Amino acid sequence: MDIYIVSDVGGTQIRVAAFEVSTLNRISLKKIPTQFTGQLPVERLIQLIHDIKKDFFVRAIAVAAPGFLDPDVGIVYEAPNIPGWENYPLKKILEDEFHLPIFLGNDANLAALGEWKFGAGIGHSNLLYLTISTGIGSGAIINNQLLLGNKGLAGEFGHVTVLPDGPLCGCGKRGHIEALASGTAIINYVQEQITAGRPTTLTQVTKITGKDISLAAQNGDEIAMEAYNRAGKFLGIALANFLHMFNPSIVIFGGGVSTSGELLFTPMRKSLQESLISSAYLEGLTITTAQLGDDVGLKGALALLVTQVSLIDQIPTLSN
Amino acid sequence: MDIYIVSDVGGTQIRVAAFEVSTLNRISLKKIPTQFTGQLPVERLIQLIHDIKKDFFVRAIAVAAPGFLDPDVGIVYEAPNIPGWENYPLKKILEDEFHLPIFLGNDANLAALGEWKFGAGIGHSNLLYLTISTGIGSGAIINNQLLLGNKGLAGEFGHVTVLPDGPLCGCGKRGHIEALASGTAIINYVQEQITAGRPTTLTQVTKITGKDISLAAQNGDEIAMEAYNRAGKFLGIALANFLHMFNPSIVIFGGGVSTSGELLFTPMRKSLQESLISSAYLEGLTITTAQLGDDVGLKGALALLVTQVSLIDQIPTLSN
Repeated sequence: MDIYIVSDVGGTQIRVAAFEVSTLNRISLKKIPTQFTGQLPVERLIQLIHDIKKDFFVRAIAVAAPGFLDPDVGIVYEAPNIPGWENYPLKKILEDEFHLPIFLGNDANLAALGEWKFGAGIGHSNLLYLTISTGIGSGAIINNQLLLGNKGLAGEFGHVTVLPDGPLCGCGKRGHIEALASGTAIINYVQEQITAGRPTTLTQVTKITGKDISLAAQNGDEIAMEAYNRAGKFLGIALANFLHMFNPSIVIFGGGVSTSGELLFTPMRKSLQESLISSAYLEGLTITTAQLGDDVGLKGALALLVTQVSLIDQIPTLSN
Repeated sequence: MDIYIVSDVGGTQIRVAAFEVSTLNRISLKKIPTQFTGQLPVERLIQLIHDIKKDFFVRAIAVAAPGFLDPDVGIVYEAPNIPGWENYPLKKILEDEFHLPIFLGNDANLAALGEWKFGAGIGHSNLLYLTISTGIGSGAIINNQLLLGNKGLAGEFGHVTVLPDGPLCGCGKRGHIEALASGTAIINYVQEQITAGRPTTLTQVTKITGKDISLAAQNGDEIAMEAYNRAGKFLGIALANFLHMFNPSIVIFGGGVSTSGELLFTPMRKSLQESLISSAYLEGLTITTAQLGDDVGLKGALALLVTQVSLIDQIPTLSN
């Protein structure tokens, strides 16, 4: 049986799956913690791929990884939470090990590709994907192609400044949309209000989570509602920017915060409408939530292989 | 002789040119004012095209127009300063008149395409073009294709919010980069400082122009320098946003303000470097000025025809 092997390498977990080439049915899935004393993350990744590979004929391998990477040259410049992956020649390491065509992609970029090929974005030529959890990940499809830019660094929509000198972002800069509308931003806002002495039902909670704030907002807590309204307002401004630049036909929201639903989306839509220079940007526009759930990284890596299949067939398989 | 006819329709002037298909040599150019009592702009455009057309065999016509338009359906939704061009079926009107393949494009989008095909951007696959004059026009090339989006409304980089609740933009919204870094924005800033009673050599000038401010800044006038520094600062922030999203290999600046050179570009580069999340975005990046000058609209329309030439050949020429 011919298979594709795909992997989603995160700071916590490495997931590897095999898909049958002809049907794209998933025939196996394994998960292990990324970090383990005495073993490098790449050793654990390689071992897991060998476990899955077994007696199959592997056509190609694709890996989704976080952070900055250049898919063409196959180097991970910087992957937060993966020890040692700095200017790391991941593609070459895997090629040397497996003698197979190896493809890399940024995890959020591949998530966009996955939703476009297999999820909420099927049939759309111009798609924007934003996943809002602790940070904001993102990717875009332009003219049915993944937006990569000159060195594969494109698609960082979370790091767009919407409020100069605004709150500190995870990246160290200020006022990015990630610093204003991510889960972390929502929690930080509530904690600042508590520090400022404003009353909220959340004062009693020891370590405030997004879920706590979501529940408090649903119960009418003013600070909690304010936190979502503020996040939604800035998300709407950012989204208007993105529509002015890309004019997509679909915007897909993934990630934990987007499950807060109308708490975030009602103020976002209001702010989006106020910020657009023309309502023409809303014509034919779908705004929806992601469909692929936890599998989005694996499905994205699979989408990368499927869209590169003509390329794969040109690459002689050196050995299996 | 086979020719392409291209036109650049502005609020002030209609320009029409003919280019020989095989050599792309320009064989004629005519200009007339857009507005004239008793004649519609489209009548003047049609008359000028007939004048140029003469005995040539015309393969196709392309028109660059300002404002919002959908190049696929061929409708100009809104063209500022061109009376009557609202939801205007320009493509159909020209097809009915000339029975030839007609192509439309937004003027700034086509300027980007022109610089990519014939100007400063030759050989670059991912290009960003910004023209800074009274407003900010823009366009982008992604993967060697003009960024159009779902309905051709993409590429409005001037209307990206960088300072919510900031100065009023020409479009009626606030805090767009056009409202902070265009020629109009620079003049407005100086006038606000004069109104606020701050001393400047520009107080004596009756109707302040960009040139006045540029000269005053070169002579050390504090307010004038401040105006450029502020524009450059916000332009740098916006440019960092664009690099994070698109990772282009070249950014091309056109328009009057960009001829102010280092007055604008020095603070822009400083702010850009401070705002980038990684210096990797600067690797392999060229920041330069436009090459096509006043011809950019015509050359852009020509570039549209040249890149669509396979499409043109599929369209039977109904008559000449």
